[in-house]
Amino acid sequence: KRSYSITLLPGDGIGPEVTAIAKNVLVLAGSLEGIKFDFREMLLGGAALDETGVPLPDETLAVAKQSDAILLGAIGGYKWDKFEKHLKPETGLLQIREGLKVFANLRPAIVFPQLVDASALKREIVEGVDLMVVRELTGGIYFGKPRGFGSDENGEETGFNTEIYAAYEVDRIARFAFEIARKRRGKLCSVDKANVLEASMFWRKRVQTMALEYPDVELSHMYVDNASMQLVRYPKQFDTILTNNIFGDILSDEASMITGSIGMLPSASLGDSGPGLFEPIHGSAPDIAGQDKANPCATVLSAAMLLKYGLGEDDAAERIENAVLDTLNRGFRTADIHSDGTKLVGCKQMGEEIMKSV
Amino acid sequence: KRSYSITLLPGDGIGPEVTAIAKNVLVLAGSLEGIKFDFREMLLGGAALDETGVPLPDETLAVAKQSDAILLGAIGGYKWDKFEKHLKPETGLLQIREGLKVFANLRPAIVFPQLVDASALKREIVEGVDLMVVRELTGGIYFGKPRGFGSDENGEETGFNTEIYAAYEVDRIARFAFEIARKRRGKLCSVDKANVLEASMFWRKRVQTMALEYPDVELSHMYVDNASMQLVRYPKQFDTILTNNIFGDILSDEASMITGSIGMLPSASLGDSGPGLFEPIHGSAPDIAGQDKANPCATVLSAAMLLKYGLGEDDAAERIENAVLDTLNRGFRTADIHSDGTKLVGCKQMGEEIMKSV
Ligand SMILES: CC(C)[C@H](C(=O)O)[C@@H](O)C(=O)O
Ligand SMILES: CC(C)[C@H](C(=O)O)[C@@H](O)C(=O)O
Repeated sequence: KRSYSITLLPGDGIGPEVTAIAKNVLVLAGSLEGIKFDFREMLLGGAALDETGVPLPDETLAVAKQSDAILLGAIGGYKWDKFEKHLKPETGLLQIREGLKVFANLRPAIVFPQLVDASALKREIVEGVDLMVVRELTGGIYFGKPRGFGSDENGEETGFNTEIYAAYEVDRIARFAFEIARKRRGKLCSVDKANVLEASMFWRKRVQTMALEYPDVELSHMYVDNASMQLVRYPKQFDTILTNNIFGDILSDEASMITGSIGMLPSASLGDSGPGLFEPIHGSAPDIAGQDKANPCATVLSAAMLLKYGLGEDDAAERIENAVLDTLNRGFRTADIHSDGTKLVGCKQMGEEIMKSV
Repeated sequence: KRSYSITLLPGDGIGPEVTAIAKNVLVLAGSLEGIKFDFREMLLGGAALDETGVPLPDETLAVAKQSDAILLGAIGGYKWDKFEKHLKPETGLLQIREGLKVFANLRPAIVFPQLVDASALKREIVEGVDLMVVRELTGGIYFGKPRGFGSDENGEETGFNTEIYAAYEVDRIARFAFEIARKRRGKLCSVDKANVLEASMFWRKRVQTMALEYPDVELSHMYVDNASMQLVRYPKQFDTILTNNIFGDILSDEASMITGSIGMLPSASLGDSGPGLFEPIHGSAPDIAGQDKANPCATVLSAAMLLKYGLGEDDAAERIENAVLDTLNRGFRTADIHSDGTKLVGCKQMGEEIMKSV
C-alpha cells in the first residue's frame, strides 16, 4: 500500500467542520485506491494564537515541511481582527506560505453546470467558464521590503510597502503558468499594470522572454483594470491567467465569484519541491461557524487537488471529483448553493452524501 | 453672461470624435442657461507625442492650469505601446493629474434603466445600482518612490515600486469621500488590504479618525479581494466606495462594467482648488477610432460633471443629463449599447440627437 503523511490544519471558523469531512473522504477514496494516509493535525491562525500566542507555531511549520502534503481549512475571524500585524491569523497563513516556499497558487474558477444559475451573471455568460488563475504567492507587495510606518520629508506620518519582483521569481512562476497553460487550452494571459508600474514592466519583459520557450502557448498581456472588466464582460475568453500576488488576490476572488460556485472552489499552492498546501478559496465564515451550515465541497475538492498535484494520485483525485459531481447530480445542496427543487442539507449530511458517492 | 474658459484635450483614438460632440453640447446647453465658453484645444497623450515628442507639453499644462475646467477625451493606442515609460501617452495623463493636483477621482457607476439588459449580470442584481467610487488619484504606488529597476543582494535583476501614503493624502481624500457620502445615501465603504499591507493599515487608521467628524455617515471597511467579489455578488450594497489609487483603478473599472453602461460613464478628477479634469471612464478604443462608431454619451456626461462639480452650474448640468436620458428614451443607441428594438446610430447622429434633446 502506498502511504503518505498529511498535515491537517483545520484553522478557524468553519475550517474544522469542512476539514473533518475532507479527511474522511480522503481516507475512503484512498482505501479504494490502495493508499494509506497518516494524518497529523496542527495549529494555525486564530486557533494557534489562542493556544500558543503565535499564528504559526514553529512545530506546525516543522511538521508541515516533513509531510507529503498539507490540507488547510480556513483561518481568521472577528475575534482577532484588532490584533497587531504579527499577531493576526493572516500572518500565520503568509508565514506558512513563505516557510513552505509555495510560490505558485493555482485557483481554478469553473462553473458547475448544476450551479450555473447561482451566479450573479447571466447563464450565457458563465456557462462553460473554466479558467485557471496562476497567482504568484510568496513575493511582490505581500513580502517586499522596506515596509512599515515612517515620516516623509515634511515630518508627515506615512505607511508604505514595496512591490518588488526579482528575475528568478518572475521566471519560476511564469514557467509554472506556461506549463499549466500547455496542459489546458494553450492560452496564457499575463495580467499586469505595465503602463504605470516598473515592477510590471519588468514582469512583462521576463514573461515575454519565457514565452520563447513555449511557442505552442499563445501568450497575451492585459492591464489589471481591463482584466477586472473582462472577467465580468466575457469570462470565457480566458484559459490560464498569470499574475502577481496582489492582483491575483483580487482577480481570483472576482473570478470565483463570477462562477457562482465560490463554496465549491479549491486551490493549490505549490513550490519547486517540498509539500504543497491545499485549501478552499473561501474564508473562515465566522458567522456560520459551528452551525453545520458550511459547504464542505471546496475543501473536499482541495483534497482532490492534493491527491493530483501534491501526490500524483490522479485516480484517487478523480474519484473524489466524481463523487462531488454525483452528489450535486443527486440534488444535494448546502445553503450557499441551494435553489428551488434541490435538497437542502447541512455540512455533515453533505459530507455523508459525498462519501456514498466516492 | 457668465463666462468660463475650458481646455479641451481630445487626445487619441475615439477621443477627438467624442470630445467634438461634447463641446457642441456644452455650447448649446450653456447658451440656454446664459453661459459662455471660451475653448482652447491642446495636445495630450499620443497626439502630443507625435507632434512635440512628449506626452504632456508644458504649454498644455500651463493652459490647463489657467482655465476653469478641462475636458479630456481619451489617450493611448497600440502605436505607442512599445514606447518607453516617459514617452507613453499614459505618462502624460499621470503628469497632468499630478500637475493639476487633482487627487480625488469620482467614478459613478450607475445603471441606466434603459440599458439594464446590456449588463453581463442578471437584471435583479444590477437594476438600481448607483454607487460612487472615490479613488485617490495622485499618490500611492502610481507615484511612490523609490521605483525602477535594480538588483538584489544576489545580483538578481529586479523591478520595484513603492506604495506609500502620507497622513495628509489619506485625510484629504477621506474628507472628500465623507462629504460625498453625506450628500448621497450616507454610507461609506473604505476598501484596503489592511490584513497584509502597512500602507493599508495606516490608511484605515486615518479613515477611522476622520470618521469621528462624520457621525452621520456610516463607515465600513472591506478588504479589496472581498470588494471585488461583493461588486459582482450584490453591487447594490454599496453607496460610496473610498479607496487608493491602484485598487480604485481596478474596482472602478469592474464596477462600471457591472452596470453594463460603460460607454455611458463619466468621471471627474478634482483637487482642493484649481480646475478639475473631466473624462469618460472608457479608453481610446483605437480599433473603432475614426469610424463614427463611438458612444459620445460618457464624454457628454463628463461635460455635465464639469458643469456641476467644476463650475457649480447645476442647471446646465442637469439639462445635459436629461438630454442624454431623453435620447435613450427616444430609442437611439450606439453599437456598444444597441439591442433589439432600438435605433442603431453612429457617433455623430447620437450627438445630433442629444443636441435635439438639450
Ligand atoms: C487572508 C489573506 C492574507 C489571503 C491573501 O491575501 O493572500 C487571502 O485573501 C487569500 O487570498 O488566500
Ligand atoms: C491609462 C492609465 C494610466 C489610467 C490609470 O491607471 O489611472 C487609466 O486606467 C484610468 O483609470 O484612468
